Amino acid sequence: MTDQHDAPILAADIGGTKVMTALFSSEGKMVSRDVCPTLANEGVKPVIKRLCSAIDSLLGRNSLKASQLGGIGVACAGGIDSGRGVVVTPSPNMTGWADIPLGDIIQERFKISTFVVNDASAAALGEHRSGAGMGVNNLVLFTLGTGIGGGIIANGELYLGAVGAAAEIGHMTVDANGPDCGCGNTGCLEILASGRAVERDAVKRVSRGEKSSLSEMAGGETEDITAEMVGAAANNGDPLALDVLMRAAYYLGIGMVNVVNIFNPEMIVLGGGMAELGDLFIGPGKKMVAERAFPVSSRAVRVVTAQLGNEAGVYGAAAFALEQAMRRTA
Amino acid sequence: MTDQHDAPILAADIGGTKVMTALFSSEGKMVSRDVCPTLANEGVKPVIKRLCSAIDSLLGRNSLKASQLGGIGVACAGGIDSGRGVVVTPSPNMTGWADIPLGDIIQERFKISTFVVNDASAAALGEHRSGAGMGVNNLVLFTLGTGIGGGIIANGELYLGAVGAAAEIGHMTVDANGPDCGCGNTGCLEILASGRAVERDAVKRVSRGEKSSLSEMAGGETEDITAEMVGAAANNGDPLALDVLMRAAYYLGIGMVNVVNIFNPEMIVLGGGMAELGDLFIGPGKKMVAERAFPVSSRAVRVVTAQLGNEAGVYGAAAFALEQAMRRTA
Repeated sequence: MTDQHDAPILAADIGGTKVMTALFSSEGKMVSRDVCPTLANEGVKPVIKRLCSAIDSLLGRNSLKASQLGGIGVACAGGIDSGRGVVVTPSPNMTGWADIPLGDIIQERFKISTFVVNDASAAALGEHRSGAGMGVNNLVLFTLGTGIGGGIIANGELYLGAVGAAAEIGHMTVDANGPDCGCGNTGCLEILASGRAVERDAVKRVSRGEKSSLSEMAGGETEDITAEMVGAAANNGDPLALDVLMRAAYYLGIGMVNVVNIFNPEMIVLGGGMAELGDLFIGPGKKMVAERAFPVSSRAVRVVTAQLGNEAGVYGAAAFALEQAMRRTA
Repeated sequence: MTDQHDAPILAADIGGTKVMTALFSSEGKMVSRDVCPTLANEGVKPVIKRLCSAIDSLLGRNSLKASQLGGIGVACAGGIDSGRGVVVTPSPNMTGWADIPLGDIIQERFKISTFVVNDASAAALGEHRSGAGMGVNNLVLFTLGTGIGGGIIANGELYLGAVGAAAEIGHMTVDANGPDCGCGNTGCLEILASGRAVERDAVKRVSRGEKSSLSEMAGGETEDITAEMVGAAANNGDPLALDVLMRAAYYLGIGMVNVVNIFNPEMIVLGGGMAELGDLFIGPGKKMVAERAFPVSSRAVRVVTAQLGNEAGVYGAAAFALEQAMRRTA
């Protein structure tokens, strides 16, 4: 790699269902992007091969060689050791991604410094640099999707913790007597307030005979009820769907109050598919922050929705690579 | 104030029972210290007057004028707005300390830049600069006393949040269906795992007739049972005391797991009187961190006890004043 502070940055975001690749100018502007399916079930190697092809294709389309890049940033789901560029523990949708030296693999393939960061942390950095959190010094991002992840900006910088695994706010216990979570912990926010929690709860209640428009929406296949359906049914006033959603929203509120008391953030940014349900899902949490959190902290926080949608990860991965590359050459 | 980067710093720590004042060299070495009772029940003005007298006395004893100081740092219990130097919300033991412009009051009295910081955040900074956390980049301090407070070092710096009210880790909900906390929140760590929680639990159980050596230790006055007594009785194998302590230790463990998953810290520092009970009280939490937290994070964290004892607050207040003063003159 040449010392090119004004060289473009290539960013990728490897999620459970999609891989996004994007080219950024050194000022952080997105120049070009691509999306392909992850097909994680095919195994780790095919996914990495597809990622490399996507990078090649994006470079080709922009008449660039890899050697002209200032760095490659990769956001990836799972427990990431950013210092070593290793995917340590897989996210639930990416079986096999344990102890994968992703940074080294990409770096050897393209001969360009490569930096790996957890996808939710990348999204927080993306929203901070180019989205909802611009100009804010301290923020916490909640990614409210099938699971619940998070990202932290502290004193104006991405906070990654000792090895890059910080901000697992979906895995704080909010109910000591709650259900066991797949992570090995108990009563986690994720098992009570995520999209999957909403689905599980709705399926269970409809299965045992409770009346709801969800049965019809799922074509009689109760197991096919999705969080989106619950959101739509709740919007139409379906009492069971509303009840299920309010229960999850209540636990989300507890998580938000905890984050406000722990971080005294200027901003909570809510992203992910569940955040798109709007005030129906996030309204109760806003109210709980006002009622339950320390007044000095609840007065200081704005609760907003994310602005970059599913591009937050690549924006953040690009910003991360740029910062790390500059730090190395500094 | 003159621009004296090598001038001594005066630090104070106002707690519910004691006020400590100390003089530090510009390199952060403690030169001299004093302790006087807070007598918070007398009201805000008398406490501040006593603090000012203590400062005068410490200066006199060291043949210094206030004008020779590089700054004054004050650690104070309660919700602090560090940016404005205001005690916004009182700690439970300091009635009346609401919206007190402590920084301005001290600054006007001594004509020296004065910086106010929450006492637990100050303790975290003290332990980071001069105690258990030296050389560590990310740590979270738990102050385990009558209540539970906290302090955060993120990316090598004190993390105060938007206005200085961050790190209220005692007020994260760990049991959604738990008892109401005095802070307005529900099932907080503090109401389940603090010294006061231990006392409350022991008093309740002995009052309703459960057998325990605690009755005798308290001279038959069940209401006089203290957390120290519970600790001593538990150390002697008293089953009820052990049970009460294990219940609190379990909730502390949940709080520690949450902090490990949220912060991926290199270190958790446990300070305060309850931490002095040692492994009897903090052992279960260490085990829970190993068993329940994300492996990548539990492997990265060391759980240690604080080193500076009740001097952590003045060490931190001095470091805070030094940093802030240098930032102003930079």
